[in-house]
Amino acid sequence: MASPEVKKGVGTGLCRIKLIGTHHDIDTASMASMIEGFPRLLRAMRPDRGLLEAARLVRPSCRGVCLAGMGGSAIAGEISRAVLSPLSAIPIVTTRGYWLPKAVDSQWCVICVSYSGSTEETLYATREALDRGCSVFGVTSGGEMTRMLQATRTQLVPQGFQPRAALPLMISIVHPLVSAVIGSNDYDFTRVSYRLEREAECVFADAPSVDTLAALMSGRIPIFYGSEHMTAVAYRAKCQINENAKAAAFFSEVPEANHNEIESYHALSEADFLPIILRSRFETEKTRARLQATQTIMTEQGLAPLCLRVHTEDSLEEALAMTLLLDRVSLRLAELRGVDPLNVHSIRRLKSILSQS
Amino acid sequence: MASPEVKKGVGTGLCRIKLIGTHHDIDTASMASMIEGFPRLLRAMRPDRGLLEAARLVRPSCRGVCLAGMGGSAIAGEISRAVLSPLSAIPIVTTRGYWLPKAVDSQWCVICVSYSGSTEETLYATREALDRGCSVFGVTSGGEMTRMLQATRTQLVPQGFQPRAALPLMISIVHPLVSAVIGSNDYDFTRVSYRLEREAECVFADAPSVDTLAALMSGRIPIFYGSEHMTAVAYRAKCQINENAKAAAFFSEVPEANHNEIESYHALSEADFLPIILRSRFETEKTRARLQATQTIMTEQGLAPLCLRVHTEDSLEEALAMTLLLDRVSLRLAELRGVDPLNVHSIRRLKSILSQS
Repeated sequence: MASPEVKKGVGTGLCRIKLIGTHHDIDTASMASMIEGFPRLLRAMRPDRGLLEAARLVRPSCRGVCLAGMGGSAIAGEISRAVLSPLSAIPIVTTRGYWLPKAVDSQWCVICVSYSGSTEETLYATREALDRGCSVFGVTSGGEMTRMLQATRTQLVPQGFQPRAALPLMISIVHPLVSAVIGSNDYDFTRVSYRLEREAECVFADAPSVDTLAALMSGRIPIFYGSEHMTAVAYRAKCQINENAKAAAFFSEVPEANHNEIESYHALSEADFLPIILRSRFETEKTRARLQATQTIMTEQGLAPLCLRVHTEDSLEEALAMTLLLDRVSLRLAELRGVDPLNVHSIRRLKSILSQS
Repeated sequence: MASPEVKKGVGTGLCRIKLIGTHHDIDTASMASMIEGFPRLLRAMRPDRGLLEAARLVRPSCRGVCLAGMGGSAIAGEISRAVLSPLSAIPIVTTRGYWLPKAVDSQWCVICVSYSGSTEETLYATREALDRGCSVFGVTSGGEMTRMLQATRTQLVPQGFQPRAALPLMISIVHPLVSAVIGSNDYDFTRVSYRLEREAECVFADAPSVDTLAALMSGRIPIFYGSEHMTAVAYRAKCQINENAKAAAFFSEVPEANHNEIESYHALSEADFLPIILRSRFETEKTRARLQATQTIMTEQGLAPLCLRVHTEDSLEEALAMTLLLDRVSLRLAELRGVDPLNVHSIRRLKSILSQS
C-alpha cells in the first residue's frame, strides 16, 4: 500500500531519513495542515534497520529502558510506555527533566527524544546517560543531539515541524525502538495510518464532531480524565489545548482521583468546567465501573461530564485516534478563540529569560 | 528525647505497634487535632526491627522496589521515592491502581500501603504481587491486607485516623522500609519531629501565615507547582485542598510545564486562579532559574504567583515541613468555606455505587 520509497541520505552517517513519500504536501507553516497530516505522518517513516538491529543487540543484557524527553517530544514515550509496560519484562520509565534516576546505569538503555535536538533538559539527560555508559539512542531532527550521539544510534526525522505536531513521526520511531529493546512484536503503523484516513467515519462514529467539542470547550475549562493507557492521552489533550488554543485545561487520572479530587467536584461550576472522560474499548471491568461511577457523581454534583470513545482494534491505535481527535479540537478551539496555534510566544519569552540568567 | 516506649502487642503475630507514647492526646475525630499532631506522629512509631531485618535480607537479590497505594496512602511512597530515587541503585517505582507493571517479578520488592487495609486497588496489586512471588511487605492499620500478607512482613499502624492524616505515621514506616531494601542510611524522623514542633518559627519564618494563605485561596483556585522532590508535595497539597476544604485545586510540574502549559497562563484570570510555586533550598541551579522564569512569565501575564519556602536541613524534612504547612492551610480553608474536613461524602457515595455494580 505504501507509496514508492524516497530515500534522503543526509550525508552525515546518521541513520538516514527514509521517507515513504507521503508527507511532502504537509505545510509545516500551518498547524491545520500538520494535524490533518497526522495519519500520513504515521506511515511517512520507518526506523532505520541498522538502528533497530542495534536496539535488538542491547536486549540480552538490558535491565531497563528510560525514555528522556520534554513536552511534545515526551509524549511519544509516555504513550509507548503505557502500552508496553504491561508486556515488558524489564522496567520502562520516563523522565521529564534534567536528571536520570540513579538506577539508570550502564546496563540500561536510554532513548533520548528531542525533536529540535536542542532541548536543554534532554541534552543534560543525554550527557548523563553517556557518562554512565548507558546504551543511548536518539530520535531528533538535528541540533546538538546529533553531535552528542553515535551516528548509528541516532534516528533523524524530517525538520520543520513543531515538536508537538511531529508526534506521529516520533512515535513511529520511538515505539519500534522500545519494542526492539524489550523484544516485543513489531507494530503496524501503516495499518493504523490508513484506518485513521480511510475508516475515519467508523473510528470516530461515536464521538461528537470536532466543531461540537470545540464549542463545548469554548469559554469553559476542560479537565481530561484518563485511566491506564488513556492517561497519557488525557495529558496530551491538556497540553494541546494549552499550547495550540492558549486556553486553560487540566487533566487527572482515575482511579487515583476517586480518592481525593472527587470531593471537590461540587465546587466546580458547570458554567466554568467541562470534565471529559476518555473511555477505552480495552479498559478492564474495574476501570469501567470506576469511570462510570465517577461520571455519575460528577453529574449528581451539577457538572455535565462528557465521555469520548473511538473505535479501534488495539490500545495503541485507540491512543493515537483519540489524540488525533483532540488535536483537531485544540486547533478548532484556537480558531474560535482567534489565536494562532503556531505562535508560542511564552515559550520563546521563557527561553529568552533563561538565556540571560 | 523520646518518651517511655509503650508496646502494644496486638496478639496476631503481626509486627507489633510500638508507640512511643506521643500521640495519645490526638483526637482522631478532629482533623485539626490530627494535623496539629503531625510532628508528634512522625516520632510516634518506629518500624518493627524484624520487619527491617526482613527488608535488609531482600536487598542482595532485589532488582527493584514497587510502592503500591492510593490517595492518602500513596503519598508517603511518592515522597519517599522522590527523595530516594537519586540515591538508589535499583529502580523505585510507584503504582496507583489495580495493576503492577509486568517487570515487577519475583526479584522485586513490593511495598503495599493501605491505611485502612481494605483499599480495593491496593488489595488487587497485593494479590498480584503475591502471585508473582515478589517479596511483599505491607503497611496498614488492619483490614483484609493483614489476612493476605505474612505477619512478619506487615507493619501495623494505629487505627482510627483518616488515611491522609496518617501520612506522618505511614512515612515513618515506609521510608525506613524502602531505605532498608535499597541499602540507604537510616533517617532520623525524631529529629525532624522536634524541629517541626520546637523550631517552627525558624522553619516557617519566610512563609506567609496559614491564615494569610487560606485567605488568598478563598474564592480562588490554587495551582501548586513543584519540581524534583517538591512535585509530590505539590500533588499532596492539591489533594488536601480537594479533600479537606472540598475546593478545586490543581497541580503541575516544572520544567515540564515550561513546554506547554505556560502558553495558557494569560488565559487564567488573577481573580480566579492562584499559582503557588513550592521552592526548595535544595533545588539545582537549573531548576531555580526555571522556577524564577516561570514566576516572571506568570506575573507578566497578569497572575500573582506566590512562592513558598521553608527552612530545613534536608530535602525530606523540607517535603514534610511544606506538607504540614499546606495541610494546615487546607484545614483553615475548610473553616473559611464552612465545610467539615472529615466528611468525605463523595468518596462514600462512590464506594456505594461501586458496591452495587
